[in-house]
Amino acid sequence: MIEKTGIIHNMNKTFVFALAPTKFIFRLRAKKNNLKHVDIVYVDKYMVQYHRSNEIIVNEKTMEKVASDELFDFFEVILDLKMIAVRYYFRLEDQDETIYYGNYRFFKEPIQTIDLMFDCIIKVHEHEIFQIPSWANKAIFYQIFPDRFAKDDDHYDDFWHQTPLHDTFLRGGNLKGIIKKLDYLQDLGITAIYLNPIFLSSSFHKYDTIDYLCVDPQFGDFETLHLLIEEAHKLNIKVLLDAVFNHTSLDFFAFKDLLINQEHSRYKEWYYPLSFPIQIPQNYTQKPNYLSFAYVGSMPKLNTENEEVRNYIFKVVDFYMKEFKIDGWRLDVADEIPHEFWRLFRKHVKKINSEALIMGEVWYDASEWLTGDQFDTVMNYLLRSSLLEWLGKKTITASAFLNNLASLRGKLHPFAYNAMTNLIDSHDTERFLHTVNEDFNLFKIALTVQFTLNGMPMIYYGDEIGMSGDNDPDCRRGMIWDFTKQNQTIKTFYKTLINLRKNHPALYNGEITMSFSSDSDNVCAYIKRNEFEELLIILNASDNDFYNENLSHGYDLINGVLFEGKIKAKNSLIIKIK
Amino acid sequence: MIEKTGIIHNMNKTFVFALAPTKFIFRLRAKKNNLKHVDIVYVDKYMVQYHRSNEIIVNEKTMEKVASDELFDFFEVILDLKMIAVRYYFRLEDQDETIYYGNYRFFKEPIQTIDLMFDCIIKVHEHEIFQIPSWANKAIFYQIFPDRFAKDDDHYDDFWHQTPLHDTFLRGGNLKGIIKKLDYLQDLGITAIYLNPIFLSSSFHKYDTIDYLCVDPQFGDFETLHLLIEEAHKLNIKVLLDAVFNHTSLDFFAFKDLLINQEHSRYKEWYYPLSFPIQIPQNYTQKPNYLSFAYVGSMPKLNTENEEVRNYIFKVVDFYMKEFKIDGWRLDVADEIPHEFWRLFRKHVKKINSEALIMGEVWYDASEWLTGDQFDTVMNYLLRSSLLEWLGKKTITASAFLNNLASLRGKLHPFAYNAMTNLIDSHDTERFLHTVNEDFNLFKIALTVQFTLNGMPMIYYGDEIGMSGDNDPDCRRGMIWDFTKQNQTIKTFYKTLINLRKNHPALYNGEITMSFSSDSDNVCAYIKRNEFEELLIILNASDNDFYNENLSHGYDLINGVLFEGKIKAKNSLIIKIK
Repeated sequence: MIEKTGIIHNMNKTFVFALAPTKFIFRLRAKKNNLKHVDIVYVDKYMVQYHRSNEIIVNEKTMEKVASDELFDFFEVILDLKMIAVRYYFRLEDQDETIYYGNYRFFKEPIQTIDLMFDCIIKVHEHEIFQIPSWANKAIFYQIFPDRFAKDDDHYDDFWHQTPLHDTFLRGGNLKGIIKKLDYLQDLGITAIYLNPIFLSSSFHKYDTIDYLCVDPQFGDFETLHLLIEEAHKLNIKVLLDAVFNHTSLDFFAFKDLLINQEHSRYKEWYYPLSFPIQIPQNYTQKPNYLSFAYVGSMPKLNTENEEVRNYIFKVVDFYMKEFKIDGWRLDVADEIPHEFWRLFRKHVKKINSEALIMGEVWYDASEWLTGDQFDTVMNYLLRSSLLEWLGKKTITASAFLNNLASLRGKLHPFAYNAMTNLIDSHDTERFLHTVNEDFNLFKIALTVQFTLNGMPMIYYGDEIGMSGDNDPDCRRGMIWDFTKQNQTIKTFYKTLINLRKNHPALYNGEITMSFSSDSDNVCAYIKRNEFEELLIILNASDNDFYNENLSHGYDLINGVLFEGKIKAKNSLIIKIK
Repeated sequence: MIEKTGIIHNMNKTFVFALAPTKFIFRLRAKKNNLKHVDIVYVDKYMVQYHRSNEIIVNEKTMEKVASDELFDFFEVILDLKMIAVRYYFRLEDQDETIYYGNYRFFKEPIQTIDLMFDCIIKVHEHEIFQIPSWANKAIFYQIFPDRFAKDDDHYDDFWHQTPLHDTFLRGGNLKGIIKKLDYLQDLGITAIYLNPIFLSSSFHKYDTIDYLCVDPQFGDFETLHLLIEEAHKLNIKVLLDAVFNHTSLDFFAFKDLLINQEHSRYKEWYYPLSFPIQIPQNYTQKPNYLSFAYVGSMPKLNTENEEVRNYIFKVVDFYMKEFKIDGWRLDVADEIPHEFWRLFRKHVKKINSEALIMGEVWYDASEWLTGDQFDTVMNYLLRSSLLEWLGKKTITASAFLNNLASLRGKLHPFAYNAMTNLIDSHDTERFLHTVNEDFNLFKIALTVQFTLNGMPMIYYGDEIGMSGDNDPDCRRGMIWDFTKQNQTIKTFYKTLINLRKNHPALYNGEITMSFSSDSDNVCAYIKRNEFEELLIILNASDNDFYNENLSHGYDLINGVLFEGKIKAKNSLIIKIK
């Protein structure tokens, strides 16, 4: 019997996506393994409604199952619709029955009247189509925490390498240091850098900005930033800056004015005072009497609904995009700033440079921000947490892990899915190597996932040479530059993955056409396919070798040998099967 | 067993609604009769994440089942959340098991880590809260098709009453005529009028505007419009105008310029030319080479994404709102104009007059437009189609009818649900009396529904005196003013319902706390309750009397007698039971 409660379709951006002005993906979700066949049946609304033709052309097309997670199958079809509005319904079949789904209701017979069908307005403008920078899908990102990455004198003492304290002072990394390491990044295969904040701030992390229109002198100056971006661009490396627009520091000019002039400040509307006089909390347990990030007194929340604030922010955006030609923005605490602000932000940014990337920080399901009018991508912490649960905490099975991957595929706009910022850790988490108790084999399995999914792999500085570390502050140790202390094996593995990704586009533009898992063996596998090739990715997280003669044979791209169905304990492989 | 695929919650506007800056409704949908108990468990995100307190306060609250449609139960809870962000999960219980739902995943144990909970940012500004005009919930609307309602000379010949042709010429109704009938409307109990278009146009329906800044001389002039609104306001009657911003006529100045100057027109961007030269189709089967409403050549689609067009429209809005003090807008073909335009439109309108009402024309599920940033209400054609299917076509049962009512309650923002424009017909449909084959008893059942639901009943001119008519053009006959030819019985019934609604606020602000149906008897009933009273509405659509001793007894408000569980064939009652 068809489980009707499991069927979902919406006539909006989460279930209908414009790929081009007349090209649309329609999606339908159904209880897993419940439907054996799904068709979409559709007519040109206004041809029918106004009887413009005696012959009403009723079109239909079969929908394909494109992903399945723990509970649901996701069906999709691409339609070319040269019409003002389409009316449509779904024909749903299981073993025993066929039912029809239109306008949020189920029917036993094919739907004849258009009022009982779903309705979708087709008019979409070029500029409304989700346009993600053309370079994004192929990008290999590298995240740099400037104070901890590289110094201009390239001299690193013990202090540099120690676990920092939370409020630790600066360690001396800077932009000149980064410039010196661009060749290192190019050699690794990096094509884009995301820099944690570099604007004037008295903290080492610089997430509490004093002046957005000033590079922190600890890191450099405008000239150095110019040079960094120029040099990076010469190497075809893009540069993203971190935009902390949710809050400022106490020393930002507008908040200073508010502190001095209180309710008479002309910047009163730039923040959210709850009462006067505004008072800075004296200790950490006290909540401030103004809105702030996470109740932290030193990070008062900016009112991004205020037009003056918006204009100020857009001035900052203009400055760095036009003067410095930066390639995009990573947006801090993006989910706490109104959608409306981000819609304006996107328009502003894309007008300056349509190839600029907008990356939001959203830790959970970000589909609301990823429909085309706000972000191009978000930091894919959901991928990280699935890897962490499977390989680290071991709280989920191999099949549950695959299901979680499929959920993302099933929920997101296809363009967004293909440009997710796939990370396994960051400055805000423990390093993944720590998560797996320094087990390099499990670590490599996670990397294999990271580099074989569509999206943009993002390497947190030092991961590639085997740096470990617990959650902040331990994950922010100074980068190890002593070649002898770097783990060259893991670095080689990274380079192998990056090269494979460059030479086998199915890794970044393929579809997962099949997946397989054995929870008892703790093994899972998936096939990535595009029109040219077919790759089998197989992940064995158990302590035992795994052999399955039914697995497609082919060429093992990581080790350069033939694969005949056998994979060693704690190992991952990328097999070219076609 | 809990049917997990039936459980839906989203961390956004369709499942979390702000009622006030810190007051929220959380909603969860589950398979019907599947859950016996639902709790929400929640913490202050940043108190937990940053360990700001040693004692983490974990709150929980039981969710109430507020509605059930054919497939689903809807659970809701109101939370007062004085925090930056809330993390929460649901405890779901059926007979046999308890499971936990957080971050779109199900768990067997209570959720301990906040990353596995849902996340919701609480900061909401006063102006972001859905604010519907304070007069709306109590309003009784009357829809007037100006050419067919009343003449200033009050002289009506046979032609006036004949079934019009589609392209019929004018019949002479006008604004002065309406002014003369304001006392009629006031006597009926009307508190708001919606006028079909009155701006300059060469058609009788005036949906193809020539000049938005001109009242069509057939209907009157600025002075008459002023007078109409002044007189209406004296009687506490609001006036809404019809805004046709989706398209213009061919004679609108900008399109005329486009026709003359073609690709060189400075108004090229005001429309959507598909090729040049622009050519007006010679017959109805030919599609124009520019976008238009429903491929109709005479209604070229305006480009509301163009800033000049927006500014022009806002000038029109300003003019009628500021100069004439109109009380709001009914928006034609609202679903074919981008959401972004409507967001700006709302801001613009509400800035001028926060008590102005914005009513969209959307024939299907309009929840996307009703979250607070676009419309206040839409024409509730879904209510009409449910009534039509139950009482007219007889394609659904009494219980299915109740289920359809509940769907609206379960899907919409509660504020929007309480202000839906509840109609049973309009200028775009057959009259409901026609739908039920002139069966006044069935017609009265439909009216009882229309006037006992939350929302704004809207009477299509003439319905109240028993006018009938097939779909457009027949539904647009001239209003019958001859007292002897008006059906006074039905008019009295209308007045009774309107009076009951005024005297029993539970009819417009109550909750449906219980419903009952018997499909074999073709009877259904629901209880409307507010804090002061409890009313039983019972609808018997069958040819047989119905008696059920278990029905609450009480006072029959329509007939002024005691009700003891018995309702006659084809009858409807409103019983005061508390």
